[in-house]
Amino acid sequence: MQRPAPYRLAALRRELAGQGLDAFLVPRADEHLGEYVPANAERLAWLTGFTGSAGLAVVLPGQAAAFTDGRYTLQLAAQADPDLFEFLHTTDQPPQDWLAAALPGGRVGYDPWLISEDGLRRYADAGLTMVPVTENPLDAAWPDRPAAPCAPAVPHPLHWAGVPSATKREEVAAALRGARQDAAVITDPASLCWLLNLRGGDVAYTPFVLGFVLMHADGRADIFLDPAKLDPAALDWLGPEVAAHPRAALPGALAALSGKRVRVDGAGSAAWFAQTLRAAGATVVDGPDPCALPRSCKNPVEQAGARAAHLRDAAALCRFLHWLDGAAGHSTEVAAAAQLLRFRGDVPGFRGESFPAISGAGEDGAIIHYRATAETDRPIHPNETYLVDSGAQYPDGTTDVTRTVWTGPDAPPAELRDRFTRVLQGHIAVASVLFPAGVSGPHLDALARRALWQSGLDYDHGTGHGVGSYLSVHEGPCSLSRAGRMVPLQAGMILSDEPGYYRPGAYGIRLENLLLVQPVDGLDTPKPFLRFETLTLAPFDRRLVEPAMLTADERRWLDAYHARVLQEVGPALDDRAGEWLAEACRPLD
Amino acid sequence: MQRPAPYRLAALRRELAGQGLDAFLVPRADEHLGEYVPANAERLAWLTGFTGSAGLAVVLPGQAAAFTDGRYTLQLAAQADPDLFEFLHTTDQPPQDWLAAALPGGRVGYDPWLISEDGLRRYADAGLTMVPVTENPLDAAWPDRPAAPCAPAVPHPLHWAGVPSATKREEVAAALRGARQDAAVITDPASLCWLLNLRGGDVAYTPFVLGFVLMHADGRADIFLDPAKLDPAALDWLGPEVAAHPRAALPGALAALSGKRVRVDGAGSAAWFAQTLRAAGATVVDGPDPCALPRSCKNPVEQAGARAAHLRDAAALCRFLHWLDGAAGHSTEVAAAAQLLRFRGDVPGFRGESFPAISGAGEDGAIIHYRATAETDRPIHPNETYLVDSGAQYPDGTTDVTRTVWTGPDAPPAELRDRFTRVLQGHIAVASVLFPAGVSGPHLDALARRALWQSGLDYDHGTGHGVGSYLSVHEGPCSLSRAGRMVPLQAGMILSDEPGYYRPGAYGIRLENLLLVQPVDGLDTPKPFLRFETLTLAPFDRRLVEPAMLTADERRWLDAYHARVLQEVGPALDDRAGEWLAEACRPLD
Repeated sequence: MQRPAPYRLAALRRELAGQGLDAFLVPRADEHLGEYVPANAERLAWLTGFTGSAGLAVVLPGQAAAFTDGRYTLQLAAQADPDLFEFLHTTDQPPQDWLAAALPGGRVGYDPWLISEDGLRRYADAGLTMVPVTENPLDAAWPDRPAAPCAPAVPHPLHWAGVPSATKREEVAAALRGARQDAAVITDPASLCWLLNLRGGDVAYTPFVLGFVLMHADGRADIFLDPAKLDPAALDWLGPEVAAHPRAALPGALAALSGKRVRVDGAGSAAWFAQTLRAAGATVVDGPDPCALPRSCKNPVEQAGARAAHLRDAAALCRFLHWLDGAAGHSTEVAAAAQLLRFRGDVPGFRGESFPAISGAGEDGAIIHYRATAETDRPIHPNETYLVDSGAQYPDGTTDVTRTVWTGPDAPPAELRDRFTRVLQGHIAVASVLFPAGVSGPHLDALARRALWQSGLDYDHGTGHGVGSYLSVHEGPCSLSRAGRMVPLQAGMILSDEPGYYRPGAYGIRLENLLLVQPVDGLDTPKPFLRFETLTLAPFDRRLVEPAMLTADERRWLDAYHARVLQEVGPALDDRAGEWLAEACRPLD
Repeated sequence: MQRPAPYRLAALRRELAGQGLDAFLVPRADEHLGEYVPANAERLAWLTGFTGSAGLAVVLPGQAAAFTDGRYTLQLAAQADPDLFEFLHTTDQPPQDWLAAALPGGRVGYDPWLISEDGLRRYADAGLTMVPVTENPLDAAWPDRPAAPCAPAVPHPLHWAGVPSATKREEVAAALRGARQDAAVITDPASLCWLLNLRGGDVAYTPFVLGFVLMHADGRADIFLDPAKLDPAALDWLGPEVAAHPRAALPGALAALSGKRVRVDGAGSAAWFAQTLRAAGATVVDGPDPCALPRSCKNPVEQAGARAAHLRDAAALCRFLHWLDGAAGHSTEVAAAAQLLRFRGDVPGFRGESFPAISGAGEDGAIIHYRATAETDRPIHPNETYLVDSGAQYPDGTTDVTRTVWTGPDAPPAELRDRFTRVLQGHIAVASVLFPAGVSGPHLDALARRALWQSGLDYDHGTGHGVGSYLSVHEGPCSLSRAGRMVPLQAGMILSDEPGYYRPGAYGIRLENLLLVQPVDGLDTPKPFLRFETLTLAPFDRRLVEPAMLTADERRWLDAYHARVLQEVGPALDDRAGEWLAEACRPLD
């Protein structure tokens, strides 16, 4: 992507001056505050050129700053213009602090559709006067802004969804009644899709139907979306308790809630909803999206689907790792990602990637969310690391897996083996832990880091994220991230376990499997305990493991995992790939 | 302690009826929401007989419930009357949920001096109508309620405090100015004592001066306490920037803040303050006690004091452990605690215990906060466990240490060695971890539990708490508890590391040292890292360690710690105790 011409920033500044604002926030966000946003919401990319999934620009008349986190600091610096924007780390220098220093007491404009009330409060608490705009000034400065997407919404049948929408709606409605709430505003498309057993195609990589739900405590639901998305079959699937309305009906529907108690997620929903409800005389109760927790606990049908999808995906991944074993010197990052996509394309039920694959050789592996493009592509050389983080959407499950391999033929250097082994120890510590009910993912994060910490090493990203069931590959509310919410882990949740280590300019290591939370049976203890079942099946590169660093338990775990990979995936491979897998899954020496 | 006669509950109910309340909260709290409360604030004990440091009674006309946490569930059942109170676990069945079910929509009275705004919000969020009382109905029902304490406040000189009060006040004032706040209400006596370099004797075990501070952004402070506590020397020590007022001047002082921005700790200060400030037209800004974080980071003088105090305390503790080695069959729990106190009484600077010692043999060790009394005392038998958790106040530092020993002469059973070793592995995992700046104590909690978790075992208390410098043995804001606040650990903080395992009716194990957070020097890494320096010096009972379960690193840690104990404490002991210590500190076989 080319850097945008400076006129875009100038045009936005003219609009700000016209609206009497001292500053304006341009978050990387759509009206659902989601990760993958449609083209018409790519305002931050239009303004700055930065295409990462998390970031914010703050524009003042005479200066501007662009913020992102550790995953994207290198990408931001590569994509945005340092003459126009100061580059800052969101955690080290929070935007509200920077703004409060740059503009003490100033009037800061924001689009109430693109920031949560919790996000807004941080600015207000920093002493800034926050002014909602009714027309986004950036949109006025963006003449060729694309139209909103309008992909068809299709039924997600029960043999994949497991539970009928009416049952889910009754469960959510009962939770609202238990909290004495009359309704809940649901703005996360993952919740709309889960609640109504619908899937769509409004954004890339995730089968979302973009829309909003007003869930009532009596089990009825109003949904607000472009009516063109719903054909008669979809309307029939929704049934009589779900009423579809155009998006323009939303203000009126909220106004009708005057005097009611309405739950809105202050952290996850656009501030517009709570502001509009309060103005209409409703009582806004801050509370989590009532679908988020039940959605994250996959039902038995979804769990069986996840296992089946991971097994099919594993065959493609192992074919790719076999192919890769001879590719160094003959291929590139882009070509390797394309090859992996070809293998996945042969998998029954493949519906597309679950995110843009990260395919990074050598120093490119150190860019945590690297994306190989025609401009950045480089050959995969012998005797270096190659990191591939990829995933797929299948109707029975969503996958996400990272492997880091040594291209050979020489033995890897000792430093690399040390770092790889520490990352693997962290991965195993999480994958093998038992823990009592009540423990949240952030409590387990230190287990993944300890082996690195003991050498003064760390990684600047979370240890893991929740994963949806043919939905978003990054799904709340659970996570293994220290910055994540304290949501006790429950049976059925799917999380990634992906510690890493990155040496900028040299190499990157990340080892990721998806884990399914399961009850521990047969323990003679007073408390219920939980454990992780590993869903992902692919070998870890034994050449990069230093066996002397592993404890006996860690060696046992790795050998048992490899034996399982061979047993379950081997039968799906041809002879040559099967032989390669048998060698890759040998027990440690 | 005898159970209170039922007439007390009946008298309270009559007062409630007179005030038109459907229910009333009786928390175990004083007006500082502190742990150790003066006799005049022991309302919960007066009403129920329960003397634990955390609990709550909820009284309705026809029913009543008493809540506490895992530390005190057994004690509550032993002390309170099951015919009068239902006994419930605060976490498993939160009082607000119980009340909302027992009394849907009822009017619940509370004393705004005895609950924080955050605590209050939990009841309001549960849909209860919370009604502040101006006169506590329990006080009206308590005819012989003691007077408030009035111990003299004495200067805490610079050779112990390290930093003058004026410097501390300027640091706190600068933080207020940075947040554009005009003043802060400070209600934690630990902060009053730290800020003004004063110590007193208003409550047991902690040299607190009970009082309130109004800290102004210009560095001035108003304090509110019984003027009889301050003699001319103390007034002189406070200096001209600190003005002392009687407690009755507090409402007027808050009223004078009309129009100002005032910080109040919504979690740690009584709701009365924020309510009174708002009524007076001040803007209340919720924020932590501005003294809490600087107070928790001990300055170099305090750190040196902590080391010196722990070394002196260790000599008494090791003498006691030597004495204990021959005591089984000849002594009791109460006698052993008295013997430990005699050894400590010989230590230079000893000012008293930092909490009531826990001295539990066999099954009594499973009562997490057991207190041996004349009624509960029992002999210490051969061939059982004995757990002693105790600490002392010295002007240069506060100590807190737990050891669990096997009384012999036979070898301990395999189960006990297994459990003890897992607890020790957890202790070592925390004591030996390196971690980057930014990590909070709750993130490290899982390290202490992992060895237990892998066998389906756990303990129902936090892993560690902050410790003051000749102040409270339980000091915020840092902790190693999962339920604790996410406060990044910083150099100078002192925390306990005290995993345990308890088999009710059989035995209890807890192993506790205090740790001092230190920077890691000499690491060639981009991030600053921190580590723990162990302050406490006393052997762990090697007879209870199963060496085959330890990793090589864990064995190295234990042998090195024991070598250090022998080297540092040995010279302070007489020949016989020194020989015992040398044997106790031998390397593992």
